[in-house]
Amino acid sequence: MLNADTIIEARWVIPVAPKGVILENTSVVIADGRIIDLLPISEAHTKYSAPEVVSLPSSALLPGFVNLHSHAAMNLVRGLGADLPLMDWLTKKIWPAEGKLMSPEFVREGSWLAGLEMTAGGVTTTSDHYFFPKAAAEGLRSAGLRCAVSGIVIGFPSAWAKNDAEYLEKSEALIREFEGDRFIHATIAPHAPYTVSDDSLKACAAISDRYGVPIHMHVNETAGEVADSLRDHGERPIERLSRCGLLNDRLIAVHSVHANDDDIRAMAAARASVCHCPCSNLKLASGFAPIAKFLAAGINLGIGTDGAASNDKLDMLGETRLAAMLAKAVAGDPTAAPVFDMLEAATLGGARALKWDQEIGSLEKGKAADMFAISLSTPESLPVQDPAAQILYSAGRECITHTWVDGSLIMEKRAKTIYPDPAALERAQSLAAKWQSRI
Amino acid sequence: MLNADTIIEARWVIPVAPKGVILENTSVVIADGRIIDLLPISEAHTKYSAPEVVSLPSSALLPGFVNLHSHAAMNLVRGLGADLPLMDWLTKKIWPAEGKLMSPEFVREGSWLAGLEMTAGGVTTTSDHYFFPKAAAEGLRSAGLRCAVSGIVIGFPSAWAKNDAEYLEKSEALIREFEGDRFIHATIAPHAPYTVSDDSLKACAAISDRYGVPIHMHVNETAGEVADSLRDHGERPIERLSRCGLLNDRLIAVHSVHANDDDIRAMAAARASVCHCPCSNLKLASGFAPIAKFLAAGINLGIGTDGAASNDKLDMLGETRLAAMLAKAVAGDPTAAPVFDMLEAATLGGARALKWDQEIGSLEKGKAADMFAISLSTPESLPVQDPAAQILYSAGRECITHTWVDGSLIMEKRAKTIYPDPAALERAQSLAAKWQSRI
Repeated sequence: MLNADTIIEARWVIPVAPKGVILENTSVVIADGRIIDLLPISEAHTKYSAPEVVSLPSSALLPGFVNLHSHAAMNLVRGLGADLPLMDWLTKKIWPAEGKLMSPEFVREGSWLAGLEMTAGGVTTTSDHYFFPKAAAEGLRSAGLRCAVSGIVIGFPSAWAKNDAEYLEKSEALIREFEGDRFIHATIAPHAPYTVSDDSLKACAAISDRYGVPIHMHVNETAGEVADSLRDHGERPIERLSRCGLLNDRLIAVHSVHANDDDIRAMAAARASVCHCPCSNLKLASGFAPIAKFLAAGINLGIGTDGAASNDKLDMLGETRLAAMLAKAVAGDPTAAPVFDMLEAATLGGARALKWDQEIGSLEKGKAADMFAISLSTPESLPVQDPAAQILYSAGRECITHTWVDGSLIMEKRAKTIYPDPAALERAQSLAAKWQSRI
Repeated sequence: MLNADTIIEARWVIPVAPKGVILENTSVVIADGRIIDLLPISEAHTKYSAPEVVSLPSSALLPGFVNLHSHAAMNLVRGLGADLPLMDWLTKKIWPAEGKLMSPEFVREGSWLAGLEMTAGGVTTTSDHYFFPKAAAEGLRSAGLRCAVSGIVIGFPSAWAKNDAEYLEKSEALIREFEGDRFIHATIAPHAPYTVSDDSLKACAAISDRYGVPIHMHVNETAGEVADSLRDHGERPIERLSRCGLLNDRLIAVHSVHANDDDIRAMAAARASVCHCPCSNLKLASGFAPIAKFLAAGINLGIGTDGAASNDKLDMLGETRLAAMLAKAVAGDPTAAPVFDMLEAATLGGARALKWDQEIGSLEKGKAADMFAISLSTPESLPVQDPAAQILYSAGRECITHTWVDGSLIMEKRAKTIYPDPAALERAQSLAAKWQSRI
C-alpha cells in the first residue's frame, strides 16, 4: 500500500483534460497538495491508504473554477446604485465610495470577504484587478484561494500610486516579489485602452516581456471605447495594443464585447486570450460578446465574474451557465458553446490565460489538488442523465459542497432542506431512478 | 391581545404592493392562511399573540414567486440532449422519451419532484402547461404549491386525448372541476399558433369567455413561427389570435420573443399579459424578447421558468435576475427593467396574468400568506446596502430559507458553510458593517 494524505471517492470525476471525459466511481488520490493518481475506487482500495477518505457517492468532482477577472475588494461596495446609467453609477456612487475607503485594510478585508463567497462557489483561483494588490493577495490567501494579483497601471492618481511612473515601478516590484510563488502570481495590468497612454502601454509590454507575466486588461468593453479610440488614435483598441507591443499570447483581453472580425483574426493569430464576463456586460448594457466566434477562431477563452459592484455576485458556475446560453442566442445556434467547451473555459481556459496551466485548471496527475465537489442528488438535479450538462445547466453554486486548494479543504457546506414529508428527499431519489430506468 | 396562528418577524419585508416599498423590522401576522396584519415588530408584540413566532433578524420576506410557465413533469426528462439543434432535441430525445413515459403517474410524480425544486426556490404558485393536468395538480399540491393547470389543446394525438374535440371536452371538464378551488385553478391552453387550427382557437376563446379563465399559450417564440404564420395564414400570430377571439386581457402570451412594434401595440391595447422565459429563449437560441418595450407599453409582465428540459432549472430568482440584466443589454440602457419592476413581474405580475391577484402576488392584508424568506447575512449578500437590488442581483435561490403557502411552512433549509476559520461568518458580518458605516 502506498501512502497518501487524502483520497476522495466520487461518483463522477470530470477532469476537464482530457476533454469530454467523465470518469465514474473514481478516486482522486492526493499527497503533498498534488494529485498523485486518479483510478477506480475499487483499485484505490488495494493500492493506497490515507488518513482521510472522503466518500461522495452522488457528487461530481471538478477542477476548481479559475475566476479570470475579479475586483474582489469591491464586494464591500456591492449594492450601490443599481439600475443607474453607467456614468452616474461610477461618478455618484462607486468612485466616491472607493475614494473614501481605499486603503490596504479595505482591500485586504474586502478581498477576504469576496474570497469566502468565491470558495463557497467552487472558485480556487482568482485573477484580481485592483489597487493595493499585495493586500488583495493577503485577503484572498487568508480565505484559502490561489490568486494572480495585478500590477495595475492607470492614468490617474489613486491612494495606491500618484502617477504612471509610480504605478509602473510598484507593478514591477510586485511581479518580482511573487516570482516563483506557489500560491500568488502577479500580472501587469494596464487598466484599459482609454485610461493608459501609449508610453505606459509600451512600458507594460516591456515588463510583460521581461518577466513573462500575463497582461490583464479591460479591452473592447463598450462601443464608446472603440469609437473614442478611433477618434483619438485613428485605430481600434486591438490595433493600438498591437502597435504598443501588447498583442501576444500573454494578453488577457477582458470583456472583448465589441471585438469585430478583424480583431478576432488578429487576436487568434497572436494567441491572445479572452476573458468573458457576461453578467457585467448585460447589467451595464455593454453588449453581447461574440463567444461562438472566439471559439470558432480557436481563441483561448476564460470566464470572469467582474466585481460585485457591477455583477453583483461572484458565482462562476452561474456566470459560465449564462455564458453558454447567451452564446447560443447570440449565434442563433443552440449547438454553440457546448458544455465541455464552457466547463473548460471556466477552469483550464483561465489557467492557460494565466500561464498557470502546468499547475492548475484540470484534474491530472501531478497537478495541484484544486477542486470542488458538487452534489447531484437533490431535486435541483434529479434525475442525472448527463452529469456534465446538468452541472452547467441545472445545478447551481448551492449544490457545491466542498472546495479544496492544494489538497486542503477550504470550504464545506452542510445543508438540509426540510419538507413536510420527512422522507421527501429519499422518495425523490428513488422516483427519479425509476423513471430514468424507463427512458 | 388578538390571536393569530403565526407571526413572522423580519428585518425587511418587501410587499411588492405598494410598489417600491421596503418595510423594516416588520411582523407579518397570519391567521387562517391569510395575512391579517403587517406592522412594526414592537407593535406586534403588544397587539398579537400566536403559538408560532418565527424570528428572521437578517432576512427579507417577499411574496412567493408565481412561476407563470412551467412544464413541471418534464423535470423527469431533464438532461436529455443538451446542445442539440432544436428539431433533433425534440424528435430524437424529448418526444420519444415523453411518448414512452406519458401517463398520469409520470405527470403526478414528475410534477411533485419539480414542486420540491420550486418550493426550495421560493415559488408558491406555478402555472403549468402539460398533459394530464389533474395529475399535475395532484403532484404540485402534494409538494405544497398552489397551481393553475392547463386544459391543453394541441393538434395531434397524445396519451391524454386523441383529437381536438376530446382535448376541448377534457379542458372544459377540468375548468369546471376546479371552479372556485382555493388552491387549484385551470386555464385554457391552446399549445401554440402553429399546432392549433383556427376552429380550435375559436373554441378555446369561447371557453375562456364562458368561464373567464386565462389563455395560457406559447406565442411568438421563434422567428420560424412568425414566418410560418405569414406563409400559412397571411397574418402574424398576434393578428391571427385577434381574429380568433383570443387577444384580450386573459391572454398570457408565453415567450413573445418575436413580438414586433405592431404586436406590442395590439397586446397593450388588449391588456394581454406576456410571460417571459429568458433562459429557455437563450438556450434554444430563440432570441431576445423586447422586455423594455413591453414595460414601456404598460403590458403586464410575468416570468416563467419553462420546463426543465429546455432551461434546465426551475429557479425563479435566477430567471428574474437574468430577465432584468438581459433587458438592459437588449435595450442598450442600464436603467431598463429596474429592480422593483422585475420583482413585481415575478410575483404580482404573474398573479395578475392568472386573474389571481385578489388572493396572491403581494403581501397585503387579506391576501393569502404565500411568501418566502431570504437570508441576506452570508458572504453572498454582505454588506446589505440595498436589500431589493441585492436580493435580485447578489443573492440566489440558495439564500431562500423558508417558503410558506397559505400560511403553512412547506420548505425550510438549514444550511451551514464551514470555513477553516470557525468564526469566519461572524467576522464577515462585522467587517461588512464596519465598512458600510464608512461609505
